[in-house]
Amino acid sequence: MEAAPVRANGIDALVSSVADGMEGVNALIVSHAGSDVMMIPEVANHLISSGGKRIRPMLTLSMAKMFGYRGDGDVKLATAVEYMHTATLLHDDVVDESDMRRGRAAARKIWGNQASVLVGDFLLGQAFKLMVDVGSLEALGLFSSAAATISEGEVRQLAGAKNMSVGEAHYMAVIEAKTAALFAAATAAGPILAGSSATRSMKSFGRHLGLAFQLIDDVLDFAGDAEALGKNIGDDLHEGKATLPVLLAYDRGSESDRAFWRRCIEDGVVSDADVAEAGRKVRDTGALDEARARAQAYADRAIDDLSAAPPGEMRDILEDVAAFTVSRIH
Amino acid sequence: MEAAPVRANGIDALVSSVADGMEGVNALIVSHAGSDVMMIPEVANHLISSGGKRIRPMLTLSMAKMFGYRGDGDVKLATAVEYMHTATLLHDDVVDESDMRRGRAAARKIWGNQASVLVGDFLLGQAFKLMVDVGSLEALGLFSSAAATISEGEVRQLAGAKNMSVGEAHYMAVIEAKTAALFAAATAAGPILAGSSATRSMKSFGRHLGLAFQLIDDVLDFAGDAEALGKNIGDDLHEGKATLPVLLAYDRGSESDRAFWRRCIEDGVVSDADVAEAGRKVRDTGALDEARARAQAYADRAIDDLSAAPPGEMRDILEDVAAFTVSRIH
Repeated sequence: MEAAPVRANGIDALVSSVADGMEGVNALIVSHAGSDVMMIPEVANHLISSGGKRIRPMLTLSMAKMFGYRGDGDVKLATAVEYMHTATLLHDDVVDESDMRRGRAAARKIWGNQASVLVGDFLLGQAFKLMVDVGSLEALGLFSSAAATISEGEVRQLAGAKNMSVGEAHYMAVIEAKTAALFAAATAAGPILAGSSATRSMKSFGRHLGLAFQLIDDVLDFAGDAEALGKNIGDDLHEGKATLPVLLAYDRGSESDRAFWRRCIEDGVVSDADVAEAGRKVRDTGALDEARARAQAYADRAIDDLSAAPPGEMRDILEDVAAFTVSRIH
Repeated sequence: MEAAPVRANGIDALVSSVADGMEGVNALIVSHAGSDVMMIPEVANHLISSGGKRIRPMLTLSMAKMFGYRGDGDVKLATAVEYMHTATLLHDDVVDESDMRRGRAAARKIWGNQASVLVGDFLLGQAFKLMVDVGSLEALGLFSSAAATISEGEVRQLAGAKNMSVGEAHYMAVIEAKTAALFAAATAAGPILAGSSATRSMKSFGRHLGLAFQLIDDVLDFAGDAEALGKNIGDDLHEGKATLPVLLAYDRGSESDRAFWRRCIEDGVVSDADVAEAGRKVRDTGALDEARARAQAYADRAIDDLSAAPPGEMRDILEDVAAFTVSRIH
């Protein structure tokens, strides 16, 4: 299976539809990362200004709009979502000992692990202050549960690193927690603010979208464009993460294939040649295609979830986002 | 000035007065640190079971009791306070590269920096879930502000490390944030739950108590009993932290004294002989006595703050706690 052609409008229409709200989000992101302790805005802005897609806050805004919410709570919750994501990235880079993030040196390489940990904590605190400001206990419950779930997933991933026998159930539990939980919170926040009865379906939309998004991320770690991704190909392999493509290729491989995967994942020594070889194996065994197909199935379920939302332009745009998530190449 | 004789009852009476509530807190601490990801309870319980004084949750419970609160919100908020504190310790150990905590190997030495960062994040998420459970937006605002302030203070401390010219204002800003803010939130939570009009004074009590507590902690880093403290004497010096005793001894010292302090704080090379020499200098210049006197002044202000509370046994006990904070030797 080849990737479907990129629907260039998939994300562009979303960007346009929430442009006003995102101006507000971008202003809040900058103002609430301010401090007279200069290291805080320096570290925060290094990552914040590095051009992430900001898909999560856009989802919060678009959902609020689709359900007819009038108020500024969506902008604040969208900012909180992006802060939670940024805090996670800062801590992840420390955990994964990453050198690069979004095409730049990771903050920890410039300011040290310490600053990355503490500025992450600061942004998490600011995220909760914004949520309190909005005053919805339901939204606060949603995001505090997501915060605990995300870190639980990260610990699960850490505990299963460098282990080739973790299996698919482990992998799915990790991506449910580390990616799908925040997507689900981001999409549920809008209907919660609007007092909609479709919150559960929209949360499910976010969850399915997040799973599709992460599956494709893990495919792109083998098949992506390093420059456009802003990180290196094969990062997961270097970190001993047995993602779905690896698990599938291992299952389908010969004895010598399996020995190769065990060496890569468990011994922690991965050369450039190994990365290239791994890329061939996940392609030739059909593992990448299978992972893409599963991402497609989750995207399809996300689109189904949207049937609980009011029909109209915004719903069409979100359907395109789900389709785009699977076809994207970075 | 010698330390006043220890008032053995200062903390014992507090412990007895909130024993029932603390049973509830201890049960919640264990149950909410549970996860099928075994590394989470392992890391959390390593620190949780290591015998911290749990002064912060006891303050929350005693305040709630003093203001006549009836309900289980105090037990939940007290647990959240202790989780926030535990999360801070886990992250601090990574930031300070500490080997020991409460007389045991620091969690990061056993499970690694990664697990310490992530389990800290998990406990912070669980803390917010408990607060949401209680349902007081005012308490949520209090604790989310404290969370942001604490990490801001930690970054301030990090940014000023290994610098002998930071000055007293910097030092005070650091301890206001990293210690006084959580004490203040812990003591304000009780009156908030009880709907008391004395919340502001009780927050001030916590702030003053926290400042006294931290000043004495920093004195004990030179003059304490290593075994009882559960950490090494001179840790702050090794970490390049110019605490108040150091700043005062530097101000009062000769040119050669100043050269000694600059070498210790700024070069980051501190021998056992240097620690002993530093201990003599802070004692002989009167720096330790002055730091103790300032702690006493904050404890006195804390006792004044209590005049806004209902008179009775609990208020007497909290007065004794303030007095004990200054006289303690570990």
